[in-house]
Amino acid sequence: MITMKDVAKLAGVSPITVSRVISSPEQVKPSTRAKVTRAIDELNFKPNSIARSLVTNRTDTIGLLLSNIANPYYPEFILGLETMARSLGKNVIICNAKDYETATQNLELLLEKRVDGIVITSIEFDSLKLQEKFHANLEELANLKQKSIPIVLMDPNPRSTILSCIEVDNYLAGRIAMDHLYALGHTRIAHISVERDANVWIDRLRAYKDAHLKFGLGFDTSLVELIPVEDVKVAEEAAHRLLQRVSRPTAIFAGNDLLAVGAIHAAHRLGIRIPEELSIIGIDGIIVGDQIFPRLTTVAHPQNKVGEVAAQLLVKKIYGHDDNSNITLKPALLIRESTAKAHK
Amino acid sequence: MITMKDVAKLAGVSPITVSRVISSPEQVKPSTRAKVTRAIDELNFKPNSIARSLVTNRTDTIGLLLSNIANPYYPEFILGLETMARSLGKNVIICNAKDYETATQNLELLLEKRVDGIVITSIEFDSLKLQEKFHANLEELANLKQKSIPIVLMDPNPRSTILSCIEVDNYLAGRIAMDHLYALGHTRIAHISVERDANVWIDRLRAYKDAHLKFGLGFDTSLVELIPVEDVKVAEEAAHRLLQRVSRPTAIFAGNDLLAVGAIHAAHRLGIRIPEELSIIGIDGIIVGDQIFPRLTTVAHPQNKVGEVAAQLLVKKIYGHDDNSNITLKPALLIRESTAKAHK
Repeated sequence: MITMKDVAKLAGVSPITVSRVISSPEQVKPSTRAKVTRAIDELNFKPNSIARSLVTNRTDTIGLLLSNIANPYYPEFILGLETMARSLGKNVIICNAKDYETATQNLELLLEKRVDGIVITSIEFDSLKLQEKFHANLEELANLKQKSIPIVLMDPNPRSTILSCIEVDNYLAGRIAMDHLYALGHTRIAHISVERDANVWIDRLRAYKDAHLKFGLGFDTSLVELIPVEDVKVAEEAAHRLLQRVSRPTAIFAGNDLLAVGAIHAAHRLGIRIPEELSIIGIDGIIVGDQIFPRLTTVAHPQNKVGEVAAQLLVKKIYGHDDNSNITLKPALLIRESTAKAHK
Repeated sequence: MITMKDVAKLAGVSPITVSRVISSPEQVKPSTRAKVTRAIDELNFKPNSIARSLVTNRTDTIGLLLSNIANPYYPEFILGLETMARSLGKNVIICNAKDYETATQNLELLLEKRVDGIVITSIEFDSLKLQEKFHANLEELANLKQKSIPIVLMDPNPRSTILSCIEVDNYLAGRIAMDHLYALGHTRIAHISVERDANVWIDRLRAYKDAHLKFGLGFDTSLVELIPVEDVKVAEEAAHRLLQRVSRPTAIFAGNDLLAVGAIHAAHRLGIRIPEELSIIGIDGIIVGDQIFPRLTTVAHPQNKVGEVAAQLLVKKIYGHDDNSNITLKPALLIRESTAKAHK
């Protein structure tokens, strides 16, 4: 078996230099690095992962803690994260969490498996207290004196000063949706949202209201339906109420794609044609929007990009090159079949 | 800190006995086991995972290698697997694979993380040769003299004599779909399937043909559309061709839910009402079937149950209690809104 000593001999350097080229190439003079790399190639030397981890104290594995694997947002996000991680020389292991207990357990599991850092998606706990407790745990991990754990958090509501957060601009998404409908001539636009104290809903509703002000439209509170849960059936009922009003809206801006799917069902059942008689737009860009009939116009979150950026940011932190930035990504309009010019 | 020695002293046994109670309780006399358990409780002794793994040579972690995390079949499957695994005292770490290279890499990664066993979902490789190579790798792992790795494979086409496989009965799913349509009075039933040499498609097509024989119906090959890829748009085009035929079918049995979604689009675009003028049934029970309009009647695979059984079987194998069984699960009819009595 080829060892580091063989490489060192051929390159004419010490074994410790070879080890340094493998672990922290940026600390080695380029000319020396080139010599060692050439020797590694020539001998076809493959430092195995255990040897590598002895040298670097890293395992080149990053952990991903998912809040709920059934979230339709995740497949694209995971693909983006994995592809970028792999291109940066990191493998990814994934754990799923559905409540405080499993989140904490799986966080420990990832640490036990000696990941170099962790990406955590926003977890909705049963109470704000548990949420804060979990965040406190994370901050503690990120702040350990001996060996702190780099953490990147996907959070639409970043409160932490220590953890790096990535979010997508929800207010902007709402503005883009409203701009699109207004440009098509819609002035009587309804909004369906979820009544919950979370930025994702609050920001989108705020964008809806602000757009009325900006366009000089009267604001009719009876066109806003706040439902208690994020559910297709409940959204359908809300849309049904809106579409039965005497002065029917010509467009519905749904707080997200799932709610938009409910609105589409309501229109079908009432025999209202989309987009000829009613335009519907959502936010998120999840797969069902591309499968429903008619295909849903939406403001798509750059899910793949979010994954890529999360991996990049985490790897930066692993190498100590990050100053705890927060990153906000922009969503983009995705026109499909469910919106058209307002009928008069 | 409380140690095994303290427990042993209080229980009046040797430390090796305490260790055995933790690692292989079934090998310890019930009366001794009770004494030790009582002492563990009394001292609130928590063997930490590393100590436990030194004693048992297990990590109480199982690995899940997914073929493609975007597969809509997986969320329910993973939840079933995780819940069962946790109830059996095992944590789950997940890796994603999309081709031979990443599958092999992530298989190694799971082994490096010292999982006690691995569940692998059926991976579609670019070629049959790569598929066979991958299976050969698995059989080698499962057959190691020193420390073989328990493996459970989700495979609709189990060829291995060494690996335990779990599959869902695809032929039965096709028969259930056809029985349902025939019971509703449909005799002119079209079929859309994918032209690929995989049991999932072959078995369902065979069920479609056999049902014609069983019901004494004439078999019209022009009612079968074999498409080259599993894609909503391509399925829509196939359904469009079927629905434009002079003697239109009154029902479509789609090879899976995704193809059924394409058929629903075709009907909507042609203004054919579902289910009044056309019944559509799929197979699988993926989430989009519950979101499309009208909601799709389907033959649902017991996805959650498949996950549970996979976890149970793997844990059995980890403890050496399994004789490499193959398990076939049965699908079940799930009536929603897309099928009704045939119109005459």
